[in-house]
Amino acid sequence: MTFKILVLNGPNLNLLGTREPGIYGSDTLEDIIEDLREYAAARDAEITHLQSNSEADLIEALHAARQDVDGVVLNAGAFTHYSIALRDAISAVGLPVIETHLSNLHARESFRHTSVISAVCVGVVAGLGRDSYFAAVEGLLRYLTRIGK
Amino acid sequence: MTFKILVLNGPNLNLLGTREPGIYGSDTLEDIIEDLREYAAARDAEITHLQSNSEADLIEALHAARQDVDGVVLNAGAFTHYSIALRDAISAVGLPVIETHLSNLHARESFRHTSVISAVCVGVVAGLGRDSYFAAVEGLLRYLTRIGK
Amino acid sequence: MTFKILVLNGPNLNLLGTREPGIYGSDTLEDIIEDLREYAAARDAEITHLQSNSEADLIEALHAARQDVDGVVLNAGAFTHYSIALRDAISAVGLPVIETHLSNLHARESFRHTSVISAVCVGVVAGLGRDSYFAAVEGLLRYLTRIGK
Amino acid sequence: MTFKILVLNGPNLNLLGTREPGIYGSDTLEDIIEDLREYAAARDAEITHLQSNSEADLIEALHAARQDVDGVVLNAGAFTHYSIALRDAISAVGLPVIETHLSNLHARESFRHTSVISAVCVGVVAGLGRDSYFAAVEGLLRYLTRIGK
Amino acid sequence: MTFKILVLNGPNLNLLGTREPGIYGSDTLEDIIEDLREYAAARDAEITHLQSNSEADLIEALHAARQDVDGVVLNAGAFTHYSIALRDAISAVGLPVIETHLSNLHARESFRHTSVISAVCVGVVAGLGRDSYFAAVEGLLRYLTRIGK
Amino acid sequence: MTFKILVLNGPNLNLLGTREPGIYGSDTLEDIIEDLREYAAARDAEITHLQSNSEADLIEALHAARQDVDGVVLNAGAFTHYSIALRDAISAVGLPVIETHLSNLHARESFRHTSVISAVCVGVVAGLGRDSYFAAVEGLLRYLTRIGK
Amino acid sequence: MTFKILVLNGPNLNLLGTREPGIYGSDTLEDIIEDLREYAAARDAEITHLQSNSEADLIEALHAARQDVDGVVLNAGAFTHYSIALRDAISAVGLPVIETHLSNLHARESFRHTSVISAVCVGVVAGLGRDSYFAAVEGLLRYLTRIGK
Amino acid sequence: MTFKILVLNGPNLNLLGTREPGIYGSDTLEDIIEDLREYAAARDAEITHLQSNSEADLIEALHAARQDVDGVVLNAGAFTHYSIALRDAISAVGLPVIETHLSNLHARESFRHTSVISAVCVGVVAGLGRDSYFAAVEGLLRYLTRIGK
Amino acid sequence: MTFKILVLNGPNLNLLGTREPGIYGSDTLEDIIEDLREYAAARDAEITHLQSNSEADLIEALHAARQDVDGVVLNAGAFTHYSIALRDAISAVGLPVIETHLSNLHARESFRHTSVISAVCVGVVAGLGRDSYFAAVEGLLRYLTRIGK
Amino acid sequence: MTFKILVLNGPNLNLLGTREPGIYGSDTLEDIIEDLREYAAARDAEITHLQSNSEADLIEALHAARQDVDGVVLNAGAFTHYSIALRDAISAVGLPVIETHLSNLHARESFRHTSVISAVCVGVVAGLGRDSYFAAVEGLLRYLTRIGK
Amino acid sequence: MTFKILVLNGPNLNLLGTREPGIYGSDTLEDIIEDLREYAAARDAEITHLQSNSEADLIEALHAARQDVDGVVLNAGAFTHYSIALRDAISAVGLPVIETHLSNLHARESFRHTSVISAVCVGVVAGLGRDSYFAAVEGLLRYLTRIGK
Amino acid sequence: MTFKILVLNGPNLNLLGTREPGIYGSDTLEDIIEDLREYAAARDAEITHLQSNSEADLIEALHAARQDVDGVVLNAGAFTHYSIALRDAISAVGLPVIETHLSNLHARESFRHTSVISAVCVGVVAGLGRDSYFAAVEGLLRYLTRIGK
Repeated sequence: MTFKILVLNGPNLNLLGTREPGIYGSDTLEDIIEDLREYAAARDAEITHLQSNSEADLIEALHAARQDVDGVVLNAGAFTHYSIALRDAISAVGLPVIETHLSNLHARESFRHTSVISAVCVGVVAGLGRDSYFAAVEGLLRYLTRIGK
Repeated sequence: MTFKILVLNGPNLNLLGTREPGIYGSDTLEDIIEDLREYAAARDAEITHLQSNSEADLIEALHAARQDVDGVVLNAGAFTHYSIALRDAISAVGLPVIETHLSNLHARESFRHTSVISAVCVGVVAGLGRDSYFAAVEGLLRYLTRIGK
Repeated sequence: MTFKILVLNGPNLNLLGTREPGIYGSDTLEDIIEDLREYAAARDAEITHLQSNSEADLIEALHAARQDVDGVVLNAGAFTHYSIALRDAISAVGLPVIETHLSNLHARESFRHTSVISAVCVGVVAGLGRDSYFAAVEGLLRYLTRIGK
Repeated sequence: MTFKILVLNGPNLNLLGTREPGIYGSDTLEDIIEDLREYAAARDAEITHLQSNSEADLIEALHAARQDVDGVVLNAGAFTHYSIALRDAISAVGLPVIETHLSNLHARESFRHTSVISAVCVGVVAGLGRDSYFAAVEGLLRYLTRIGK
Repeated sequence: MTFKILVLNGPNLNLLGTREPGIYGSDTLEDIIEDLREYAAARDAEITHLQSNSEADLIEALHAARQDVDGVVLNAGAFTHYSIALRDAISAVGLPVIETHLSNLHARESFRHTSVISAVCVGVVAGLGRDSYFAAVEGLLRYLTRIGK
Repeated sequence: MTFKILVLNGPNLNLLGTREPGIYGSDTLEDIIEDLREYAAARDAEITHLQSNSEADLIEALHAARQDVDGVVLNAGAFTHYSIALRDAISAVGLPVIETHLSNLHARESFRHTSVISAVCVGVVAGLGRDSYFAAVEGLLRYLTRIGK
Repeated sequence: MTFKILVLNGPNLNLLGTREPGIYGSDTLEDIIEDLREYAAARDAEITHLQSNSEADLIEALHAARQDVDGVVLNAGAFTHYSIALRDAISAVGLPVIETHLSNLHARESFRHTSVISAVCVGVVAGLGRDSYFAAVEGLLRYLTRIGK
Repeated sequence: MTFKILVLNGPNLNLLGTREPGIYGSDTLEDIIEDLREYAAARDAEITHLQSNSEADLIEALHAARQDVDGVVLNAGAFTHYSIALRDAISAVGLPVIETHLSNLHARESFRHTSVISAVCVGVVAGLGRDSYFAAVEGLLRYLTRIGK
Repeated sequence: MTFKILVLNGPNLNLLGTREPGIYGSDTLEDIIEDLREYAAARDAEITHLQSNSEADLIEALHAARQDVDGVVLNAGAFTHYSIALRDAISAVGLPVIETHLSNLHARESFRHTSVISAVCVGVVAGLGRDSYFAAVEGLLRYLTRIGK
Repeated sequence: MTFKILVLNGPNLNLLGTREPGIYGSDTLEDIIEDLREYAAARDAEITHLQSNSEADLIEALHAARQDVDGVVLNAGAFTHYSIALRDAISAVGLPVIETHLSNLHARESFRHTSVISAVCVGVVAGLGRDSYFAAVEGLLRYLTRIGK
Repeated sequence: MTFKILVLNGPNLNLLGTREPGIYGSDTLEDIIEDLREYAAARDAEITHLQSNSEADLIEALHAARQDVDGVVLNAGAFTHYSIALRDAISAVGLPVIETHLSNLHARESFRHTSVISAVCVGVVAGLGRDSYFAAVEGLLRYLTRIGK
Repeated sequence: MTFKILVLNGPNLNLLGTREPGIYGSDTLEDIIEDLREYAAARDAEITHLQSNSEADLIEALHAARQDVDGVVLNAGAFTHYSIALRDAISAVGLPVIETHLSNLHARESFRHTSVISAVCVGVVAGLGRDSYFAAVEGLLRYLTRIGK
């Protein structure tokens, strides 16, 4: 069976690779998604991707995902910390979502230690830079397989 | 190159598979570690494992790991929330550690939302049940490869 | 005299009727608005309606309402808890706004107990499911009549 | 079917109409209840009313209401903020209760932003002055009808 | 020597046995007090009992107890959490009081985790349902005997 | 002109003189009120007095005071710390009230550092034992004279 | 039927009788356990006992108790306030545990007012000195009998 | 016997009468002290007075007062809220001090609700404008007489 | 050298001049920007301006500014208090940003005392009404000149 | 018209230019004031300046300023965070005061995020190093001109 | 007289000299203890030493110290921040204990600012690196001499 | 080499020996300084001393110390808890400062548990009464020697 995975990236992640490469690496978001598609394909899964700086766009992408997506890898960026609307969208669509972050939020400013979406996600993968996306996809695919989705 | 990974499990995890199987599944810790060894072997990595209910034992296992371990997958159990001694051990040994949890701590009691070890770990993988260990190993191996360990 | 009432619905309320019907009922938002128009018409009032997942859209709908609306029934959804921009819009336009919720927020997660908009609304009606809208309209019409709007 | 509604008013509400009429209007509590009876009668419902400055009296009125009341409109006055005993009485009797307030508590002192009874009431209507009682009755009757009481 | 014990029950405990029997059991307060009298009699002790929903009544019962009571078993119900007046009465009368609860307050809402009376009681017995009263009497009698009252 | 002053004493103050005389002195409340009447008479003022353990009684005494009292000396006892209903009664009757305490609440438990009535009283006199009442009457009479009551 | 009860004592309780006898009495822990065995025997119950200063030992004693113990009387000493690992052990083994303390923790330092184990224990008995153990056993036996263990 | 009373006024009180007369009255500090000397003289007491904007000056005035002062009326102005050094001076000199304020601090900004000196003063008189000083002197003289100073 | 300055205005600032002119003045945002252009031109600097009610629009304007802007004057309106996404955009683009406000936020509601963007801005100018923009431009130009941008 | 501006600098600012020049620059306070006088003169304004490490001196300088100063630029240094006495002096003298800081306090330790004087100042300019003084003077002069001082 | 001093070191201190030498120096714990023995010997005192990563071991070392130790120098490492069991052991054994730290905990993470043992130690010496032990021994010996131990 | 040490004592320490000798001993500050000079002389170090009740004096003594002092032993008294100005002076002068206290602040009132100067001092010595000064000098001299000052 082929799983369909939506990778959603939130605000400012379009700057990846051009901003603080010492921290985030010099790969652009497009580079990572490209590799991720290959990684998924090798596991018989398919990736669709959206990056947006708009909370409403991300919410609506989640609403639309109910049609044909099996699970979501979501890097909500700064929305992680305050967008209860995004949280409600996750709850409402009922898909398994893996909260994903490039950096280890607990080693950064204290306001980044609070996530308003964690409680409605299945799990979290964070701190591994670009590798966080790969570990999240690995975890999500194993999870989908195990729960017999 | 072969990576050596230490998997450390903290208090009460010896009961896995016998306790609340509805939540944690019926696999014992031994079953999971067995599968994890295979998974790692297929990626040319080697797993050593220790479970202990004693904070001192876990600290000393970390101290000893400086000799011949490349990275650590640590499910500190309840020590996650208060063992600053364990945190200091992680800092002191200087190995990359992935904080790992079976359940999504943010969907549980609020005292489980605080981790005293997160800030000194490289990253975190949580909420995927037994699959958390596999995603953590995947992430750790990719991370070790990328940083050219 | 005919009163013109704007009913504004915030993020995720477009899913009403399709999401958790056990809690929210199986009526869609369109069904409710339809009935509300009839209810209002019987009281010689007129309803206009907007649902949006975008904070900016809701703010601009409030700005525009200064032209020809007498009062607002606002279910701000999750924006209730953090959109100070929406609060400022309510203050700025100077119309009487009734904060309205389907569920009883105080029986849900603690972060839902805080409303950043309550202090600038005239009042609140909550917890009665779809009936909240009707009680809010009833209250708003009586209020507009009494203050001689 | 005729619904029987108990309207309960707590401490200091006996002064209504004689105290700060600029804020609360010059209608006495008796005036309001009189109008409310008419309003209810027109909807085939019946109002019984009690005002008391005594927490014990209010608790015992709720206990007694189990006999022959369908729902309660409760303006607990200052007890709203600390009478956990009143809260327990609401829980215990199992009747639908609408928390009602004349003023918008969130536009007043911060200690009035906390209600110890909200979580056990069905819903809340507040801020509409005397009209709060009418909107509460409207909402309660619709609610009782809808849940097929 | 015969000890005289006052058992005091606070607000809503008159509903015992008729309210949420799944949680509290189907015994009425009268049933429990009856059994408790027997239990005490078998230990050569005598029980007097008062239940009231009025804070003032409970305070005055404590004042009166100075005349002829050796110790008090007090289930203050919801007053536990805010009646500092009751606390002051306990301090003032100088009798040994055992704070008693049917349920385990720490497994309930967080506002029930605070007791304003604990610090002036000798001790606490909670969580054992109707058996809490018996263990409290047992403890109080042993305590009175040991301190040579 | 003769001023009429109501002295109101709250819960447990009936025990004065019989409870912890090391702290509160051995004068009973009656002794103090007797002396206070003389003190007031010498200043052409008249004292009426009520002590009650019931919140409702104190509230109703304040309501009644609107008829013929010029100012109030109120020792609310433990109600100081939580009776918002008493606070509302003070606000509602519009009389100048002096909050009075025997002991220095700030040298006692931290929960006694909070007064819910201070903000609606004219002022406070505390810590002088029985002399607090006399200084409060002195202050109130000077205040009433100065504001030309 | 004979009930088997495990009495578990945590850190520093081995010093009982030799430390601050003014507060804790001059009985050693052995004395108390001896009397407790007699008390239990008279009720057809059997006591096993362990005192340890090691968190791991206590956790493992709970794990082992699943084999042949009906209920636990646990004085966790200082672990009460921070050992979430002990809490998890209590949850995991599924036995009824009565939290027990010699002193009234609420009359001591504020950090002793927090118990991390209360929520997973059946109930609590505290403040009665050595008698706390006896009241706890009494309560536990009645509880086991009532729930038909 | 003649009592010697030191009246100490802290920062900004030199502006009295020239600043916000609507609130503080148009009397200067000198006017009040003049009247206060007369008031005290009539009671066979003697006033010395110091106003300073310097924390060190006030501390040293308290140190010096040990020589020949019986009690102190202290309006510490803003130092009330943070000068722990002043608090320590009060403790160290061991004289009875009455904390005095013109306004009712609890009806002002929340940072004025905290007094770092209250706990080491005998008592407090506040909110009566210039009359606070007179009631404080009255209370202090009665207190000094009663404790047989 | 000519400096290019982007002036960014956030939600509800389009209403300037039409809303609460007593507080904000009767100048529209267009009037102010017009004057600001002249002020800047006289200092050989050039202003571009955007007002938007959309968080995403403001973020994207900052992203675009990396091309040809030397510094930013940002009045983020209500986003100041919660838009961590805007904060991240400021960090990411690396331009000097002056946080600017018309009113003195510290003299308003307490939730306006927190700014999530302050820590990543160079500095702040607030409270001077329309003059805040001019002082901000003055400061920014001096700053750019001094750091030799 | 010529405006007279008082520039007040608080504790440790006398060390400017000699302390941490990497952060604060190598200009001494005298250098800055000299330039500021020229800047002001070019705008037909006159600067007087005082630096003091003494809270009392700063308070008294504000008191004296009522005679002949039109506005104040105040860098209160560390007093910003706790000197409520200085705050009261600002309130009392009724002059427009601009709170000024060299550094961006929100990018420093959290205790520097609280200002006890902000709420009584007209506005704030901070973070621009020595340029903060110039922007503050610019803003103050425009403000004084606009309000028709 | 010869004093016997127990030096106790807690978790991770066995790594001293091998971990972060830039911060902690390159001396091993053995080196420091060696020097400390000499230092003590020169003052006619004798050192015994234990390092352990086990909380239970440290507690039991304190228990045993009652036999023949005059005072304790305790570097509890991370246990400083949460081991209330260790605190209770210090209280129970009644020996003078000097809390000692290599680093200045207040210049590190905020969770290191809290010590659960400070209140039961005689005093504290911290921040001087290896010299902290020597100053602690100096202080302890002077203290023991002065109190005539 | 001879080290020059400045001993600074803050407010109320001039009363040492005359105030609460049971706690602080009967030695005056002069006695202690005298002994301290001898102690230092024996280690080839020189003490200068200043006690002041004035924050400004202490700040200026620190400023002056940059000329010829090697290190500072500072007992800031109550200023420890709020004088951020003193903290800034310590930071600015760049000398090693040992925070010193007679008593163990953590065994006193909770507001004494906070030190605003700790984070900028090298270390702390507290709780040893007069011996604190000697241990502080010992530690400071060893520290100065070790860092090769």
